[in-house]
Amino acid sequence: MKFSIKKKYKNARSGYLELKNGNVQTPTFMTIGTYGSVKSLSSEDLLRCGCEILLCNAYHLMLRPGLDVITKGGHLHKFMNWDKPILTDSGGYQVFSLSKNVKVNKDAAVFKSPYNGDEIIMTPEKSIKTQIALGSDIMMIFDECTPYPVDKDKANESMRLSLDWAELSKKANDSQSPLFGIVQGGMYKDLREESMKNLKKLDFDGYALGGLSVGEPSKIRNEIVSHMAPKMPSDRPRYLMGIGKPLDIIYAVQSGIDMFDCVIPTRNGRNGQIFTFKGPINIRNSIYENDFDPIDKDCKCFACQNYSRAYIKHLDKCNDSLAGRLISIHNVYFYQELMRKIRNSIISDTLDELIKEIEFYYSEVE
Amino acid sequence: MKFSIKKKYKNARSGYLELKNGNVQTPTFMTIGTYGSVKSLSSEDLLRCGCEILLCNAYHLMLRPGLDVITKGGHLHKFMNWDKPILTDSGGYQVFSLSKNVKVNKDAAVFKSPYNGDEIIMTPEKSIKTQIALGSDIMMIFDECTPYPVDKDKANESMRLSLDWAELSKKANDSQSPLFGIVQGGMYKDLREESMKNLKKLDFDGYALGGLSVGEPSKIRNEIVSHMAPKMPSDRPRYLMGIGKPLDIIYAVQSGIDMFDCVIPTRNGRNGQIFTFKGPINIRNSIYENDFDPIDKDCKCFACQNYSRAYIKHLDKCNDSLAGRLISIHNVYFYQELMRKIRNSIISDTLDELIKEIEFYYSEVE
Repeated sequence: MKFSIKKKYKNARSGYLELKNGNVQTPTFMTIGTYGSVKSLSSEDLLRCGCEILLCNAYHLMLRPGLDVITKGGHLHKFMNWDKPILTDSGGYQVFSLSKNVKVNKDAAVFKSPYNGDEIIMTPEKSIKTQIALGSDIMMIFDECTPYPVDKDKANESMRLSLDWAELSKKANDSQSPLFGIVQGGMYKDLREESMKNLKKLDFDGYALGGLSVGEPSKIRNEIVSHMAPKMPSDRPRYLMGIGKPLDIIYAVQSGIDMFDCVIPTRNGRNGQIFTFKGPINIRNSIYENDFDPIDKDCKCFACQNYSRAYIKHLDKCNDSLAGRLISIHNVYFYQELMRKIRNSIISDTLDELIKEIEFYYSEVE
Repeated sequence: MKFSIKKKYKNARSGYLELKNGNVQTPTFMTIGTYGSVKSLSSEDLLRCGCEILLCNAYHLMLRPGLDVITKGGHLHKFMNWDKPILTDSGGYQVFSLSKNVKVNKDAAVFKSPYNGDEIIMTPEKSIKTQIALGSDIMMIFDECTPYPVDKDKANESMRLSLDWAELSKKANDSQSPLFGIVQGGMYKDLREESMKNLKKLDFDGYALGGLSVGEPSKIRNEIVSHMAPKMPSDRPRYLMGIGKPLDIIYAVQSGIDMFDCVIPTRNGRNGQIFTFKGPINIRNSIYENDFDPIDKDCKCFACQNYSRAYIKHLDKCNDSLAGRLISIHNVYFYQELMRKIRNSIISDTLDELIKEIEFYYSEVE
């Protein structure tokens, strides 16, 4: 992996990642295909939306369809018919948020499969071996994730366990694939700094801020991001995990973040929420029943080029999954357009103006 | 509308329909987009599948989104982004099969809207005016449909009411759009013949066999079809409504039918049933978990060109609507291929061989 910064504007950076399956322009937004598919979208849809990299989850894929199935057919890219880069998340976040009765000792997380109740022992080694077998372009260390709120002792203890696992993850990577460390420490700036300092010693290919978007107010989250981002190694990609809304993203870019992922464009899309550069709309609002304009007249996505708001609203009312697909296509396209605008604004020194524009339409959005 | 027969083989005919929005090769299979959408498929998907004509339902569209919505945006073709022909069904079948407490008098069917309980009075005039407003390429008369089994007196009475309504439908058509009559009479051949004889006097642009696929054994249905088809005017298109499975279709073509529609390729597709020229398969069978071949190696559809059985099975397990979309695309493509093979076999005098081939793979399928 090679990371090049072409242009900086204050703390914000624009550049690109060279990965084994292609290049990715940064700042980038990774659309989420947890189970090896972005719900309702084909690879063709994703390419047309301008996606350069997807995020899949090693934890989910290990449970369903299972690593044996995917690897029998080659690797994950082939399985899902996506030949561009894939970042795989380790599953640290999911083990702790989705599994019941997780037992953690210094070596492993032990939990029951939500699908068949089988006991599963997840270790940093196993997570990395899984990600290597999937053919990941960027792998994430296996870490522990604390909820919000959590007291400082617990956050400290958890952060230190994640550091041990970061070291074990690093050792387990006998592949050429880049591996990113994940900064933990809850909402405590000193713990975050200590986590960062120790991860840096392990010399990861990139660094991520994890353990955010776990229920904390966005003000607190943005404080952690703006405090930490400039302290992350400037020659490595900086990844803010699980974020976010358009404003969260642009503020984080301003602080120096290069990579993002979030379910919002697709999950909210399937529930009727649509993003536009004039603010969000919800197709379930009755005013769209007789609205024969496209979602956004200026948008070049497949949905806006072919269908009206009235038709998409009708599809949604009829529970036709084409509604969710069209809105997902539009939202994924919107997020790629947002990142393109952000990159261009860094290059042309107009990021502040773009922030004001996004603030104007998205400040009230919770 | 112009109907031309290019070639006959025994009773089977191959030709084409010239309609205001394009030509349709016959025998044709119309994919069903009841509410102005073929569930989960975009117009692009349908064009790629080779669809030349769709069937939509005036009854459903009148209730949702309502005629006012569709006509405010232009007409149905524009609303659903489909610029090729559309046949609209009148809703006779649906009024009697979907609505509770339907009251029928000689002028109208009165029932409650399944969506909001409003009393709806449906007359032949109203049905035809609705179909005209939708911009239909082929309209169907408003008829009454009897269930199976039904005694002969009831079938006779209902058939005569449908004849009266056929006449009212015909009178109500002040447009240039072709209107088809619908032959009723239950499973009684003499009633069917009488219905046909009287409809003929009204000089419709085409004739359909209605009131089939209402629960009768396929043997009885095929007898009615093979008895009636050759008695239908040979210079007009003959349409077998709501049918069917590959074998039902090819037998009906053999008897002289030109047009078909059925929900099977899409509805069954969303439940995992896949049609191939080597017989049907169900993706939910566990043997496909590790099967990295496409659904059909010889198929040129979007699903087969891009995805494996194992991946589609995985999507289905994850409740990702992309599974239903891919299988629907394959099945719709298969039905269009089937019709193409049928047309070619009529032209090359090899229909009997094709029937044997389809029988070999589909005789056991119920």
